[in-house]
This record gives sequence, structure tokens and C-alpha cells, in this order.
Amino acid sequence: DKRLALVTGRAYPELANEVAQYLGINVLPTTAYDFANGEMYVRFAEPVRGADVFVLQCHTNPINKWVMEQLLMIDALKRASAKSITVVAPFLGYSRQDKKHQGREPITARLMFDLFRTAGANRLVTVDLHAAQEQGFFDGPVDHLTAMPVLIDYVRSHVPMDKATIVSPDAGRIKVSEQWAAKLGGLPLAFIHKTRDITRPNHAEAHGIIGDVQGRDCVVVDDMIDTAGTICEAVRTLRNSGAASVTLVATHGLLSGPAVERLRDCGAREIILMDTVPVPQEKRLDNMTVLSVAPLLAAGIRSVFEEGSVATLLEGLPE
Amino acid sequence: DKRLALVTGRAYPELANEVAQYLGINVLPTTAYDFANGEMYVRFAEPVRGADVFVLQCHTNPINKWVMEQLLMIDALKRASAKSITVVAPFLGYSRQDKKHQGREPITARLMFDLFRTAGANRLVTVDLHAAQEQGFFDGPVDHLTAMPVLIDYVRSHVPMDKATIVSPDAGRIKVSEQWAAKLGGLPLAFIHKTRDITRPNHAEAHGIIGDVQGRDCVVVDDMIDTAGTICEAVRTLRNSGAASVTLVATHGLLSGPAVERLRDCGAREIILMDTVPVPQEKRLDNMTVLSVAPLLAAGIRSVFEEGSVATLLEGLPE
Ligand SMILES: Nc1ncnc2c1ncn2[C@@H]1O[C@H](COP(=O)(O)O)[C@@H](O)[C@H]1O
Ligand SMILES: Nc1ncnc2c1ncn2[C@@H]1O[C@H](COP(=O)(O)O)[C@@H](O)[C@H]1O
Repeated sequence: DKRLALVTGRAYPELANEVAQYLGINVLPTTAYDFANGEMYVRFAEPVRGADVFVLQCHTNPINKWVMEQLLMIDALKRASAKSITVVAPFLGYSRQDKKHQGREPITARLMFDLFRTAGANRLVTVDLHAAQEQGFFDGPVDHLTAMPVLIDYVRSHVPMDKATIVSPDAGRIKVSEQWAAKLGGLPLAFIHKTRDITRPNHAEAHGIIGDVQGRDCVVVDDMIDTAGTICEAVRTLRNSGAASVTLVATHGLLSGPAVERLRDCGAREIILMDTVPVPQEKRLDNMTVLSVAPLLAAGIRSVFEEGSVATLLEGLPE
Repeated sequence: DKRLALVTGRAYPELANEVAQYLGINVLPTTAYDFANGEMYVRFAEPVRGADVFVLQCHTNPINKWVMEQLLMIDALKRASAKSITVVAPFLGYSRQDKKHQGREPITARLMFDLFRTAGANRLVTVDLHAAQEQGFFDGPVDHLTAMPVLIDYVRSHVPMDKATIVSPDAGRIKVSEQWAAKLGGLPLAFIHKTRDITRPNHAEAHGIIGDVQGRDCVVVDDMIDTAGTICEAVRTLRNSGAASVTLVATHGLLSGPAVERLRDCGAREIILMDTVPVPQEKRLDNMTVLSVAPLLAAGIRSVFEEGSVATLLEGLPE
């Protein structure tokens, strides 16, 4: 008598359909449209009473609209007596502002969790948060999945491994890079560090490399590629330092603004992403591989629904 | 030692500047911009610690963005130790979906209040809610202002009154029309009623008029003009029934989609609105009058700040 239901917002319904296939169910039909003044209407076409409902929405542009749509869906589910409501946000929007860097700033990551909670969400499934600490922002269970095993599998079989070096694009991600290096059989590590020219405070940073990259097939691992400025700078620095090749790997391919152009010109061997936000055809460069996040999400949803362990999915979770 | 501060989102900063002038203060400077992926950044340029802060945002299109920006501002104020945080939403977005018309719908009006509360708002100032009952959706004081006195003053001195009749555009707004008629010295009333042709269930409604409009200067009073479909239909029905002239009055001029074209062609004598959302120049027809809501908002803010009575502002509040 337990019932699993999956509903989706309009940001990327294809992903929900794929997840549903893995779960062996259909996405519950939903009516959703925009009113003339920009407000939105949502309604579920079938009863959800007593169901464990998962509300999938991708926080892609226009992100504020899609977040609001997800909130409306949660509110409607709560009022329709769903037994439990789980937010599925493969990429959690606003998660980068997770602390105050200066006074009088918001902590938007916390706000997002608060908004979902208030609308009626009981728990949240997401993939590779910008900082794992953000799980503590939610007053309820957070199933923090990681795409690392999927990405590592792909890298292991598609990137030359005998001369590979894992590269952290900044000092803050060295721990994750260590996990990558270990899981790939103890690969060497390097990291890029930014040095500010203190005589020219508002000028571009210089990049230095700690570790040996000469003649190496470098694999740069990051959580997201947004405008791709920093990471393309990193590719150039590595190539100038004699790297044999540079492969870019990231979970979230936001690819905003000049990102695609920069990636095209940076000289990377391959760019490997998950589709935690949709990557439209016109952004898919020839050397870009977009892996589906659907199996991971389906496994996460299945575990939550069956109250099984998500521990196996959390293998290699960044700290 | 009490301190009043007014901050504004980017939807309609001109209104905040006008309100600030009435209050004899400056709008507190705020940094606000969009990141490349559509997320937003906000930060206040000056301390707000201990201040009673009013956060003005107009819920105009793109409405979801502007609501989210207001939520970010509230979150930042809360974390910066503002003494109190009051949402000022001259037109409250999502307020029309204030009950479930069918199962499995959200109640978006309630959700809005919940989101503001969760972000950190202590109270809320708004003008002419779609239904006054919505005040009960907020767990805190709601100062529900009405533009009726401002609009009535204008109508009294600009519309021919000797043969005037107040017209309610539908049965649901007769009580408000009664108040208008009474305040204008006991004018006669009429209302438009919609009759559905039951033999053709999905076809347009026919409109009938209850009351005498032949040779009368009709004043149609509504809370908002959105796409203007219904209200322009009403104008036509009144003119076909021999009305001498038809004046349209509404608090919220959303003027979405085909509204301006419809209003241009409907044959109204004058269209009178408040600027609770911005009415850009290109939408301002020659026979359109847009009255400033700034004095009303300033008076409301002053009353809240001084813990004075807003009762005088509530005079003629719709039930
Ligand atoms: N959507 C966004 N796009 C770009 N930068 C952002 C975004 N949201 C937050 N930030 C900034 O990213 C920085 C945090 O990144 P990090 O230091 O890697 O944790 C802060 O300075 C934020 O202001
Ligand atoms: N933004 C909107 N634009 C047009 N209609 C809306 C909007 N929001 C809600 N509604 C609908 O307006 C109706 C409520 O209006 P009313 O019956 O006048 O209270 C409901 O059927 C709603 O679905």
C-alpha cells in the first residue's frame, strides 16, 4: 500500500521521464502554465493522497522561476495530503552563497532549504552540493548523492590512465581530488594555486602549479563549470607547463554566458559533465560528454522510498 | 534611538525613492545584481543593526525573480540584526489563488506569506489585497492599506458626478461598489452578471446588467486590470446598453499581454490606476491616469514605524 509518485516541473521534464523509466513508473501528469502577469499555475492530474511524492526540478535558468514552480508544487502536494514530499534538486540553486563573505549578505543556500521546508518538503535529495556542510541547513534528512562513482567509471575507461595526474583547480578542492586519485589506483596529484599580485590589487590573478604536470595527462576535477573562466585559465596554465593533455570533469555543467566559447578555445582534450541541469544541443561541443544523472537519482529515490540505505550511493562523498 | 530604513529591490526603485521623499529619508543603498546563471546577489551598503527596515518590492514581471530578490533581502536583513523587517508589497503577487478551486492546487497567496515569514519578515504592508481574508494567512501583523480614498478623491473631481452610477464588474465586488456609492454621496449602483449558456458549456459567457445605466456616466471599479478581457467586455456591454460614458478605476494596473490594446479599443472615457506596479510610458494611453501610491505607502510605513494607528488609512477597507 506504499505508493511512489514522481512529479516534475517544467525546467527539464526529459530527466524526470528518464528517472521514471529507471524506477519502472510513469511521471504523474501535471498541469503547469504561466499566467499573463508571470505568476504560475500548477495542478496534479491525479490523486497523491497517501503517496510518497518526489518533486524533481532542475535549477537552471530562469532559475528563480523554476524554484518558485517547485515551491508551488510542494504546496499543492501538502494540501493534497501526500504522505511525504521529497525535493529532488540535482543541482541545488543558490548553493554557492553558503556563508557570509561580508556583512549584510544573505546566506542563500540556507534560505533555499528554509523555503522548501516551509512549502512542505520533508526531505531533500541533491547531488554534489557546493559544500557538504549545507546538509546541516535543512531541518530534516538530506540525501546527498555524489556523481563521483559515475564520473570515475567513465574517466577510468575513456582517459589515458598510465600517465594521468589528478588536478585540483583550487586549494579548496584538494580533499576531493585526493579521493579521486585514491579511487583511480593512487594517481599523482597536483593543484593550481592563485597568487594575487599585491602591487596591483584589482588585477587578474597569476596561477601557479604545485606538483608535476610535465608530460602528464591531467584530469581537472571540479563541482561545477559555470562561466568556465577559472577552469579555462587552469587548462591554459597546465598546457603552458607542459601537460600532455587536459581533461575537465565536473558534476554540474551550468555553462552560463561565455562558457561554451571559452571551453571551445581552451584546448581541453575532453569535457565530461552530468546533466544535473539540461545541456542543450547547441552547447554540446564535439569534445563534450554529458553523462545521465538519471540512474543515480533513480537509485537515490528508490532508497528513500524503500527506506533502504543510501550509503552505497554516498560512497566517496566529498567531506 | 529608533531608526527607520527603507530598502528596495530592482523592480521599481523609482517608487521607493518617491516614498523616501515623503518620509524625509534616503533609500538605503543596496548592491544587487544577477550572476551569470540567473542567481542573484544582494548586499546592503550600510549597517542596519537595530533599525526598523521596510523592504519594498513591486511584484511585476518577471515576478518570480522579484519575489526571490525580496526574499534574499529579507534574509540578509535578518542576519544583519535588523530590529524589525517589514515587507512592503504594494501589489502582492500570487494573491488571486487564495483558495483551492479544485483538488491538488496550491494556495499560492498563503505560500507567499509563508515564504516572507520564513525568510525573516515580521510584518507586511500591502494595498488592496484580492481578498481581505488573506490577512489571516500571515502569522503577524498585516497592514492592509486601501487606495480607495485616493481613487475616490480623484474620481470626485474628474468624473461627471451628476449622472454617475457605480458599476461592479461582477457579483463578487458589490460590497466594495456599495462603499464607493456611499462615499460619493449615495450614487446609484449597477452590476454586471455573467450568464453561461448551458447548452454550450465551453463557450463565451453572455453579460447582463442589473440596474439602470441608460444615459448614465458609469464608473466601473475593480481591484486590478490584468489582461483587461473581462473589464473591456463590461465596457462594451455598458455602452451597448446606453451608458453615456464608462470610466474604469482599479488599484493594480498589471496590464499584461493584450491589455493595452484592449483598453485602447474598448471605448472607455478614462482609465484610472495606481502605480502599485510600474506602468511604463509605452503602456500609458492618452486617456489613462496613473496616480502615485507613494503617499499612501509612506503614511503606512510612518504609522507602523511610529506604532501609530493605521486605522485612518484603512478607512473604507473592503470587507
Ligand atoms: N551564482 C553565482 N555565480 C557566481 N558566483 C557566485 C554565485 N553565487 C555565489 N557566488 C560567489 O561565489 C563565492 C563562493 O564560492 P567559493 O569560494 O568557491 O565557495 C562567493 O564569493 C559568492 O559570492
Ligand atoms: N495570475 C493570474 N492571472 C489570471 N488568473 C489567475 C491568476 N492567479 C489566479 N488566477 C485565477 O483567478 C481565479 C480567482 O479569481 P477570483 O474568482 O476573482 O477570486 C482562479 O480561478 C485562479 O485560478
